[in-house]
Amino acid sequence: MELVALSAAQNPENYPTHTLDHLVDEEHGIRVPVTRITLDDSPDGRPNPPVTVYRTAGPGCDPTHGLPPLRAAWIADRGDVDTYAGRVRDLQDDGRSAVRRGTASEEWSGAARPPVRARAGRTVTQMHYARRGIVTPEMRFVALREGCDVELIRSEVAAGRAIIPANVNHPEAEPMIIGRAFTVKVNANIGNSAVTSSIREEVAKLEWATRWGADTVMDLSTGDDIHTTREWILRNSPVPIGTVPIYQALEKVGGDHQALTWEVFRDTVIEQCEQGVDYMTIHAGVLLRYVPLTAGRVTGIVSRGGSIIAGWCLGHHRENFLYEHFDELCEIFARYDVAFSLGDGLRPGSLADANDAAQFAELDTLAELTRRAWEHDVQVMVEGPGHVPFHLVRENVERQQELCDGAPFYTLGPLVTDIAPGYDHITSAIGATEIARYGTAMLCYVTPKEHLGLPDRDDVKTGVITYKIAAHAADVAKGHPGARDRDDALSKARFEFRWRDQFGLSLDPATAEAFHDETLPAEPAKTAHFCSMCGPKFCSMRISQDIRDTFGDADEQERVAGMAAKSDEFRRLGGTVYLPDPATSRR
Amino acid sequence: MELVALSAAQNPENYPTHTLDHLVDEEHGIRVPVTRITLDDSPDGRPNPPVTVYRTAGPGCDPTHGLPPLRAAWIADRGDVDTYAGRVRDLQDDGRSAVRRGTASEEWSGAARPPVRARAGRTVTQMHYARRGIVTPEMRFVALREGCDVELIRSEVAAGRAIIPANVNHPEAEPMIIGRAFTVKVNANIGNSAVTSSIREEVAKLEWATRWGADTVMDLSTGDDIHTTREWILRNSPVPIGTVPIYQALEKVGGDHQALTWEVFRDTVIEQCEQGVDYMTIHAGVLLRYVPLTAGRVTGIVSRGGSIIAGWCLGHHRENFLYEHFDELCEIFARYDVAFSLGDGLRPGSLADANDAAQFAELDTLAELTRRAWEHDVQVMVEGPGHVPFHLVRENVERQQELCDGAPFYTLGPLVTDIAPGYDHITSAIGATEIARYGTAMLCYVTPKEHLGLPDRDDVKTGVITYKIAAHAADVAKGHPGARDRDDALSKARFEFRWRDQFGLSLDPATAEAFHDETLPAEPAKTAHFCSMCGPKFCSMRISQDIRDTFGDADEQERVAGMAAKSDEFRRLGGTVYLPDPATSRR
Repeated sequence: MELVALSAAQNPENYPTHTLDHLVDEEHGIRVPVTRITLDDSPDGRPNPPVTVYRTAGPGCDPTHGLPPLRAAWIADRGDVDTYAGRVRDLQDDGRSAVRRGTASEEWSGAARPPVRARAGRTVTQMHYARRGIVTPEMRFVALREGCDVELIRSEVAAGRAIIPANVNHPEAEPMIIGRAFTVKVNANIGNSAVTSSIREEVAKLEWATRWGADTVMDLSTGDDIHTTREWILRNSPVPIGTVPIYQALEKVGGDHQALTWEVFRDTVIEQCEQGVDYMTIHAGVLLRYVPLTAGRVTGIVSRGGSIIAGWCLGHHRENFLYEHFDELCEIFARYDVAFSLGDGLRPGSLADANDAAQFAELDTLAELTRRAWEHDVQVMVEGPGHVPFHLVRENVERQQELCDGAPFYTLGPLVTDIAPGYDHITSAIGATEIARYGTAMLCYVTPKEHLGLPDRDDVKTGVITYKIAAHAADVAKGHPGARDRDDALSKARFEFRWRDQFGLSLDPATAEAFHDETLPAEPAKTAHFCSMCGPKFCSMRISQDIRDTFGDADEQERVAGMAAKSDEFRRLGGTVYLPDPATSRR
Repeated sequence: MELVALSAAQNPENYPTHTLDHLVDEEHGIRVPVTRITLDDSPDGRPNPPVTVYRTAGPGCDPTHGLPPLRAAWIADRGDVDTYAGRVRDLQDDGRSAVRRGTASEEWSGAARPPVRARAGRTVTQMHYARRGIVTPEMRFVALREGCDVELIRSEVAAGRAIIPANVNHPEAEPMIIGRAFTVKVNANIGNSAVTSSIREEVAKLEWATRWGADTVMDLSTGDDIHTTREWILRNSPVPIGTVPIYQALEKVGGDHQALTWEVFRDTVIEQCEQGVDYMTIHAGVLLRYVPLTAGRVTGIVSRGGSIIAGWCLGHHRENFLYEHFDELCEIFARYDVAFSLGDGLRPGSLADANDAAQFAELDTLAELTRRAWEHDVQVMVEGPGHVPFHLVRENVERQQELCDGAPFYTLGPLVTDIAPGYDHITSAIGATEIARYGTAMLCYVTPKEHLGLPDRDDVKTGVITYKIAAHAADVAKGHPGARDRDDALSKARFEFRWRDQFGLSLDPATAEAFHDETLPAEPAKTAHFCSMCGPKFCSMRISQDIRDTFGDADEQERVAGMAAKSDEFRRLGGTVYLPDPATSRR
């Protein structure tokens, strides 16, 4: 498979200030890749230390071969999983076109490892280990990555307040953690639909998303080649992969949601567990009795999974089979370390429907399911809205955190207005910052194409960068340790007219540089003490620096200001040298 | 002068669902232009009422002629202004190039009216009338526009909690109001610099900005032809125009801020009063003794006006001449009805400097100046930051509102992170929504080019739309009457697959339509009950509608769900028809 080559200028990893570096835990042989941004000296000759930033791009690889299995030895060393034959390849997994053709569009031809799962009676989840006081290499990796003590990682995972999504069949992924005590994470959705896209494009979007900083990626494919697209994505993904298995299950029954059964769903979940999916959205909170609560809404049910389940429940006059078989799902997930992403199938799809009875009824059930999963030592996060007016955003996360005993919240935006299709990355980043500030652990990005079409690669980039802004702004607002370092380094570079450093420290160096160069393209402008916004005479930072150069630091400026105040007073009093005694002059 | 033609598709006013309409006050002969968005019927045949939205684009005109003087008769009818000769045209007003050439680049050749000012001893500000209980046509226009009682307008203006910027020499402008009791407004900055741009481009940016919804425009030109560029802009502007007169004053003294004098500044202010500038940024709060407070900052002083004044104060060992002559400025502004925009010359330029001693010291002085201006019946708003971490944003507006007795707050963003140059329209829209939610009355937009270069026309559009999102989201969050109507109409259209209505109701109809058409271009797709995001099988809204069609409204769905629950219970109990008596079966 040929992938579109990324131009050097468009690849942030290739920016001249950037180098790949590693944080190293020698004792345990763990190396965490990071991006080191090298900075120039200040004009006064003092050096500026490099800034090291979190890196999600992975080591890179030929996409036809896939990434090396970073975690394979760690998993094997625990001695609690067995290799087994796995499900038999079924062309039906890739849809009717594949059955017709006798093959998927582009079969995966890279590394193929037999699946593993927990030995009978064992549980292999990070939560299970954490609760038993076992510190795994995954936890050490994450501790280095977050810059915190590994005990904080272990205890938060043990308490259910954080998850490390890490299917034993996705050893390529670099461990990461999702929880309110850690940096806010960003998920990027990719995936084809019946109307558009190819495997090649989806793998390119994955690579693109992780280069710009996506912490996890969800493959939401609903079109052809679902199984094979997912295989390509998993084998190439350095970040955890999430899915919504009901989409594939629905494909398997020809798109007729009334034909769905627990058996088809269960088989699909196992298929995806064996491939290595790290977390799955399960709409087990859409209960039959909640569906009528949506009947008076402006936009009904806008979750695809939610609407499928709601239709099934009413059509069958039955309770949601995901709810009824939830413990069985827990048993499966415990054998692969798949995390639940408890779907908010009844989330609001418009401001008008926000924080309503249907939404909060489902949340009550998600809280119950969180506790049931924890009884199996299965990791859980809880999904949240959606579309919510700005003043109602905070209630969502505070209610979820309280009801779900601090299980990580994972929200889509929320969008704070419905009037800007084409700009919903922005409408939702506003709500995302607010909801993350109050404790949401991961934000699902929204691209400019939301509500209008599937994102292309540019949209993926815009969506990821917009959400890195929201996540970072929330980290700063939460006072997360060190969160402001990069801001401060960039601001210092700005004040000192170190243009290259400003570009290098920004989320999108090449774009920042290109915008600068549009009006001042010449190379000397890169060292100019002004820019095209103000020109040299009006550059406030230059004047501000001149003030410091001329009048010194705060103490010296105080002295000048003090003298001046005296002189002003002198003039005001008419310039007389001998003043009347204030005590007597009152007469 | 030839202006770049706007393509029909790029002009929101030309979108097929849009028509120009008017709100009419027959009794007083006042007509307020609005945009009427016509909607299709719902699938069940029920009509959807049109949605009427606030319109800032003005009546349009040949830019070489300028707009008709809408307010001329209202001003004349009050009988309190006189025409006078005005300042003599001085080529120095347009800078050294104009002096060299003997003319500005493109002299204004349209309507030229002699300036007017208050008869000696009279005050012609809207605040002055309001305090005397006089209801002006401007107030009636604004009341229709805001959809509120005119007494609310009068009383808020009288109290200083709102301003109607309306220089008697800018009769072309359609009156609007800035105050926390009303819809949040958006300002767009345009203007050339020594490095770029032409008069033609600036007039095009003005037209562009008001088409997309800018409520006021600031002309921040610092390059050649300052006077003439402003004349073109004022004569073509349907919205109030703001300036920062110190920029032109600095040009007049050859760019050497030490050479600035009160006399040059005063002459520049009068020049701009006579042209019709509606509000002026005056950095009178930068006191000598505050300057040393900025010496330890990461980014010093980032306001151009602030740095110029700070340098002047220290260089002259004198107090800020704007502070010393503030009452004289009030007397001038009272004769033209120019509003103060009290500049925040010491605003933070980075997260690191936010909410510091320098910033809040200046705010104390701005509060003092607000009261001094009110003693002259001069309208005032107060400018705010800047760069502020998200959790510190709210303090800015609450402190300003308290100290300044509710005078309108007018803020630039604020940006909630410094790490995203190229995306600062987004970083700042997040802060803008937060600050507007708590009472900021007007938001100054930030474009993607902020910190990097001057915005071009596309940047102006992106900046305005981004800030319309922030302002609208804040209106909704504040519970402003009717603010959510457009959201609800769009959401209903979305649920009913009325694609054209969705596009028409959005802030940028052509872009929304283009994004949709990228993946589903055919005309039938405009009536399709799905889109390319999910395809037909996975369309949650379609499934959700099917549920309603099949199972009816909430009551009917309840009945189905209730029956189902019974049936579930039956199955759970083993399908036996005769149940044991619960009271006895406990054994």
